[in-house]
Amino acid sequence: MSTTIDVPESSNTKGKTILLGGPARSGGWKKGIAIMDFILRLGAVAAALGAAATMGMSDQTLPFFTQFFQFEASYDSFTTFQFFVISMALVAGYIVLSLPFSIVAIIRPHATGPRLFLIILDTVFLTLATSSGASAAAIVYLAHNGNQDTNWLAICNQFGDFCAQTSGAVVSSFVTVVILVVLIVMSALALGRH
Amino acid sequence: MSTTIDVPESSNTKGKTILLGGPARSGGWKKGIAIMDFILRLGAVAAALGAAATMGMSDQTLPFFTQFFQFEASYDSFTTFQFFVISMALVAGYIVLSLPFSIVAIIRPHATGPRLFLIILDTVFLTLATSSGASAAAIVYLAHNGNQDTNWLAICNQFGDFCAQTSGAVVSSFVTVVILVVLIVMSALALGRH
Repeated sequence: MSTTIDVPESSNTKGKTILLGGPARSGGWKKGIAIMDFILRLGAVAAALGAAATMGMSDQTLPFFTQFFQFEASYDSFTTFQFFVISMALVAGYIVLSLPFSIVAIIRPHATGPRLFLIILDTVFLTLATSSGASAAAIVYLAHNGNQDTNWLAICNQFGDFCAQTSGAVVSSFVTVVILVVLIVMSALALGRH
Repeated sequence: MSTTIDVPESSNTKGKTILLGGPARSGGWKKGIAIMDFILRLGAVAAALGAAATMGMSDQTLPFFTQFFQFEASYDSFTTFQFFVISMALVAGYIVLSLPFSIVAIIRPHATGPRLFLIILDTVFLTLATSSGASAAAIVYLAHNGNQDTNWLAICNQFGDFCAQTSGAVVSSFVTVVILVVLIVMSALALGRH
């Protein structure tokens, strides 16, 4: 009789360790990651909105003009910059909409559903943010340095303020990209460790 | 006495369901994902190498010249295209080096270590591939269409072959990007479901 009672008892403690002990140990760690996730998302919203707004407001009109022309540069001179404004606004909108899911991950640190949802959509919007940031960076580089082989002249000598604004917007978009990469890595770690 | 024996027995079967039942059911499914991962990586290597090689070989010399100039366009006329060749080669190298980890994931479908390693590095190289592809796309767009406001003329009328080669390289890099996104989503699903 004593053996038959002993065996269930030992597996009982095992079962309890798995069911209660495990989660209790890693729960605080996962909750910390979820809170960090939420804070980083707030930063990403600010960076993405800043990038979209700075690029959208970039506009410079030179103080001299000829009979036919007034020299003006604004973001809608470049298709790439238009794409930048639209896609950074989309990224900012997505991150705002993802905040409730991040809060769910704080309340229920063990639910994998919200984390999976966030990691997949984060990857998609990371691609969008990176592509718009990088293509805008390529144009900003051309505006600063020009290209001798194709006879594209640098315009930053004339449009200094415009170049400063667009460069700032590109830097801000790269901040968004870095935050999104960190968010994905954190979500992956939280999903992988039990 | 009967109550104290009943309770351990029920939690014993619970413990067994978690320890044995779960993994046995989802094992084949995870192995399928790991095999798919390996095949997609082979495709990504081909696409990345193709992108780097096509861009690296793009070169066109026009059949007429003046006393001082011979008109020539090659990828090293553009800093962005140089960055494209280097980073796509890096991405191809990384994916080749990641193949052994993908094989480990096939052999041990339940090990989270290799999957975590792959998802984190995949995210980093996704960013690299996306940024090089998008910045090259911005330059290819300018080469095709030019920009009136800054007086940058389209060069694709003269350098048709060069433009076709660089456009092909950009398309190939976007194939790499799409495959990497799919790989990350698959790894996340495999990590999240138990």
